Amino acid sequence: MTELRRDPIVGRWVIMEMDQPMIPKDLHMTPHHYEDAANCPFCYGNEYMTPPEIQAFRNPKTEKNAAGWQVRVVPNKFPALQIEGNLDRRGLGIFDMSNGIGAHEIIIETPYHEKDLSDLELGEIGNVLKMYCLRSLDLQKDKRFKYLMIFKNYGSGAGATLDHNHSQLIALPMIPKNVIEELKGSGAYFEFRERCIFCDMIRQELDEKERIITQNDQFIAFCPFASRFPFEMWVMPKEHQLFFHNISDESIASMAGILKEVLIRMKAVLNDPPYNFIIHTSPIDGEERQGYHWHMEIMPRLSRIAGFEWGTGFYAVSTPPEVAIKYLRDVRI
Amino acid sequence: MTELRRDPIVGRWVIMEMDQPMIPKDLHMTPHHYEDAANCPFCYGNEYMTPPEIQAFRNPKTEKNAAGWQVRVVPNKFPALQIEGNLDRRGLGIFDMSNGIGAHEIIIETPYHEKDLSDLELGEIGNVLKMYCLRSLDLQKDKRFKYLMIFKNYGSGAGATLDHNHSQLIALPMIPKNVIEELKGSGAYFEFRERCIFCDMIRQELDEKERIITQNDQFIAFCPFASRFPFEMWVMPKEHQLFFHNISDESIASMAGILKEVLIRMKAVLNDPPYNFIIHTSPIDGEERQGYHWHMEIMPRLSRIAGFEWGTGFYAVSTPPEVAIKYLRDVRI
Repeated sequence: MTELRRDPIVGRWVIMEMDQPMIPKDLHMTPHHYEDAANCPFCYGNEYMTPPEIQAFRNPKTEKNAAGWQVRVVPNKFPALQIEGNLDRRGLGIFDMSNGIGAHEIIIETPYHEKDLSDLELGEIGNVLKMYCLRSLDLQKDKRFKYLMIFKNYGSGAGATLDHNHSQLIALPMIPKNVIEELKGSGAYFEFRERCIFCDMIRQELDEKERIITQNDQFIAFCPFASRFPFEMWVMPKEHQLFFHNISDESIASMAGILKEVLIRMKAVLNDPPYNFIIHTSPIDGEERQGYHWHMEIMPRLSRIAGFEWGTGFYAVSTPPEVAIKYLRDVRI
Repeated sequence: MTELRRDPIVGRWVIMEMDQPMIPKDLHMTPHHYEDAANCPFCYGNEYMTPPEIQAFRNPKTEKNAAGWQVRVVPNKFPALQIEGNLDRRGLGIFDMSNGIGAHEIIIETPYHEKDLSDLELGEIGNVLKMYCLRSLDLQKDKRFKYLMIFKNYGSGAGATLDHNHSQLIALPMIPKNVIEELKGSGAYFEFRERCIFCDMIRQELDEKERIITQNDQFIAFCPFASRFPFEMWVMPKEHQLFFHNISDESIASMAGILKEVLIRMKAVLNDPPYNFIIHTSPIDGEERQGYHWHMEIMPRLSRIAGFEWGTGFYAVSTPPEVAIKYLRDVRI
């Protein structure tokens, strides 16, 4: 028997398999595999293979675009959007278009070719998060941009074209549709109840305790009630915060801890699966949406997912969050 | 250089690669492969392997659940939703849920194990479309249902678990989110302009002639301006029609012709790729939305598609529709 569940933020319904849920051994997974590092543009000594670096945390005695860095940011060699030029938005009959203005940066998370985020020390993960903030604070000065999207593709099954661990930041001249939907839903809730829907969700999860993977002083990690994918995980600050990039250094340390923990748990349960994560944060168009609350969504890419969800907006989920967390909690750390 | 394009119906932006588009040879494709037919539940003689048939076009002298049919409809053996029971919708704090009431039917398109829709005769394709209608007309009598979704997964890369060609019909007790978005967008346009946005889109495509794959007296097939995927194709009735299932027999013949043609073209250009199609039609909740216009969306599943679009709502498209149609038009039929 299945159950229909509605996401309270955007109103999406999912069909959840309740009686015969898939458990980890039923889900096809191709564990992550590292190709040879020889020609990796993200390894020490190969810095010349990338466009010149934008920013880096590096040993003070080392030079730009040379070895000695811990986190390094470079422009994407094949950018989806270009930084130069003015935004030229125009209509074409009923259609709308614009030139592809934006920024597309790569955050190389570690010099080690075969280390992923969960392998890094807490301080190193904190540095990656800190770099996300610094790049966001820099890019938000550019008035052409309305939204900053930070995401990670891990493994070719999740769309990564290079093995060496990295994340991406895309600055967009418009707010993406999925964010508009979250803003609308959370905005309507805020207007109606004068409360943040994300804060209420955290309160309910803390009450019910049925979907929480882990928590610490500042963050909570849970499998959402209306998960779109088996083992989907959300990491959220417990305090109401609009913008990711306003996070304090203390919160960064706390987030690094919870992120490392959930990634280790996911890796253990699902055999190092490909995954994506995305930081959902408020737009930088100058408006402050009081009903919004930034968070990170982590989606393992398990190959049994049909994926026709793309076209239909209709998600059939084989593993309820209440089942997923049993496995995730069980991992010994 | 890329270009940002906005879908006029739902307002989704896509990033289109203009200067170095991917052409068919750049797109990874796994051609369709048929497993052995021996234990195929959709082949003649194996009718006992499916749940009892709901409806079929069959030779009058043959018996139900035996060989001799041309198109056969059976309940899905592993249904996403169950037909029995009352809809029990309730709240759980901020969450909403319901039991999984609905219908999930399989339309077996042909008795031939190794024939796909494009291999069938026009009359046979017409019969498949006719069966979609008949099942829709039957299911719409059930007042619990608000939406009927007809779709096809072709090939394991598109989520099909059985090779033998079939489509699916899911009756839902709610309107899916992607349809609500289309209804909102087209409804707002209709209110503002007193015209159907889909009709205007057809008019513009007929004017510009840049994205039309083919057309006949009643239907047009084109690659949409803001395609989400390389070689995405839409088939639309030229006349303003709200419901797919009200299609006349004459229109069915016309649609069969255009559908066969676009599937043959896609198969030739992309080496028999996995694909999904979905019929987008008006909800059956009793309301008539004058601004809506039913159509079919066909999406080849090419493996270079990263697919992180799932989470971000952000589509980077490597092949503009204007490039795709050059290849599609070039096929000799």
